[in-house]
Amino acid sequence: MEFHVSIFFIIEVIGTVAFASSGAMVAIKQQLDLLGVVVLGVTTAVGGGMLRDIILGNVPPGLFMNPVYVMAAFITVLALFIVVRLNQRILESRYIASYEKMMNIFDAVGLAAFTVTGIDTAVLAGYGDYHFLSVFLGVLTGVGGGVLRDIMAGQTPYILRKHVYASASIAGALCYVFLADWITGDASMIISALLVILIRMLATRYCWNLPTATKKQP
Amino acid sequence: MEFHVSIFFIIEVIGTVAFASSGAMVAIKQQLDLLGVVVLGVTTAVGGGMLRDIILGNVPPGLFMNPVYVMAAFITVLALFIVVRLNQRILESRYIASYEKMMNIFDAVGLAAFTVTGIDTAVLAGYGDYHFLSVFLGVLTGVGGGVLRDIMAGQTPYILRKHVYASASIAGALCYVFLADWITGDASMIISALLVILIRMLATRYCWNLPTATKKQP
Amino acid sequence: MEFHVSIFFIIEVIGTVAFASSGAMVAIKQQLDLLGVVVLGVTTAVGGGMLRDIILGNVPPGLFMNPVYVMAAFITVLALFIVVRLNQRILESRYIASYEKMMNIFDAVGLAAFTVTGIDTAVLAGYGDYHFLSVFLGVLTGVGGGVLRDIMAGQTPYILRKHVYASASIAGALCYVFLADWITGDASMIISALLVILIRMLATRYCWNLPTATKKQP
Repeated sequence: MEFHVSIFFIIEVIGTVAFASSGAMVAIKQQLDLLGVVVLGVTTAVGGGMLRDIILGNVPPGLFMNPVYVMAAFITVLALFIVVRLNQRILESRYIASYEKMMNIFDAVGLAAFTVTGIDTAVLAGYGDYHFLSVFLGVLTGVGGGVLRDIMAGQTPYILRKHVYASASIAGALCYVFLADWITGDASMIISALLVILIRMLATRYCWNLPTATKKQP
Repeated sequence: MEFHVSIFFIIEVIGTVAFASSGAMVAIKQQLDLLGVVVLGVTTAVGGGMLRDIILGNVPPGLFMNPVYVMAAFITVLALFIVVRLNQRILESRYIASYEKMMNIFDAVGLAAFTVTGIDTAVLAGYGDYHFLSVFLGVLTGVGGGVLRDIMAGQTPYILRKHVYASASIAGALCYVFLADWITGDASMIISALLVILIRMLATRYCWNLPTATKKQP
Repeated sequence: MEFHVSIFFIIEVIGTVAFASSGAMVAIKQQLDLLGVVVLGVTTAVGGGMLRDIILGNVPPGLFMNPVYVMAAFITVLALFIVVRLNQRILESRYIASYEKMMNIFDAVGLAAFTVTGIDTAVLAGYGDYHFLSVFLGVLTGVGGGVLRDIMAGQTPYILRKHVYASASIAGALCYVFLADWITGDASMIISALLVILIRMLATRYCWNLPTATKKQP
């Protein structure tokens, strides 16, 4: 993977930590063993980029060529596992709410960073004129790891079910593709990433949901 | 994707509409939100071709290079969503039976078209002599989208469970590969597609099922 | 696929038979039909190698170019289906325990063979210096088919849930990668494969399990 500005590396690491944490928490709640927690955590963090690279023909995918994100995810997952193992009541403690609130912000940062770098990867591979492909790959990089996590955990993917999550990624991706014709790549990247974060924060704060075709039964 | 005869384009669009509709109905019945309905509908319609292209090394897959089928699927899904949203009792009305009967025929047409164009793609890529690969890719193009739909919806894939569905695709694919040595490509394509439709119609009419190893418990 | 020593071909066929058998038994217990049993059995046997080849860019995957393992898996599955169909009480008989004990040994042999040949494929493709990639592809070749089987059967993947299974593959893969710098390829291949088998046998005998983060509730 390439980065226009090195601040994006830091932002991507923050996103990797948040995604790995979300995968590990799903695995811990399902009482999977250490390996299950590692696999689910790391897959959530780097699975989206792997799917993007396979579709783009970047094989072997970048995560294998430069495993820095895999290492970041692995360390996150291991730390979480050890903390929960040493103090099992922590999952019911009042700290968990603050932790999840912080992780939700980190997760929005990660979704934003992965969405724009996903598009960037498509553009650098020479597919900048294929707007549908670029947008799809941005969103896939953002949400693909979570989809793999949910499929492996036997759950209907979170993004299909509720909250404005993939929608935030789609909005940011469309914004990036349209802005790129008018302003510099770096500026449009940053504006689009901020848009993703803004939508996610507002959606969480005001409990936004997309409509369903039929009324929900309780 | 390439087409020998342009009538196949019309037939593929019919199949795309039917497949998108089947994915959208699964999502609507599971009360997924608008995005979930779109993702499941479009994945069902174009997912088989995407898997085929990845296995064949046609990357990025054709659906991204020429998103006409994605658009057809998207419009279908959106129309369905709006109709159900505006008139929720339609799902229990007597129209639904006629609608599902028509969609079942469309679905058979789609299965037939996708099976033969899947093989065609393999042949055009230079793998015509690899009969197992050709047959597999034909069947994958036909049933792969439905398998992705069921995995994402958290169900055991439909094709593994009942009805002569994948079997019809397999029969058509084998027919196409064998006939191709004896008659012209177009003729064997049409005969094989008709065979798929015929088997599906007979299987639905006479409730054909493949045997299971043990007796079904009720 | 390439083999350093032809004994590995025999060992791989043993593994293919065991993996196909495990997939077919899952399908038979879920009362899937003949096609479901074939798909699940064959996918379990060759799915790991297919995923490895896609990630490595070996497309179309080797299993399609030389379908000898697919044939071995198909014959195994068909034989099992016929035996269970003809004598349904066999699933509750005392023979089934001996059969499953034997298949457990075969499965360990398969896991060992697939792990080392998976690494070998990565090395032959020129990625020998990418240790993380090599180890990942070895383990993926070993356990990927089982993961696909479980996802298609709607179960949380076995390797995430219990028993020292993927861990044995990881230990063997790490051993192979480290030994390869010191002794000949063939010797390190055999030692690593034996390590996988040894760990699996000990784990089964002494009911080894990896730790979970929280205490299991019964």
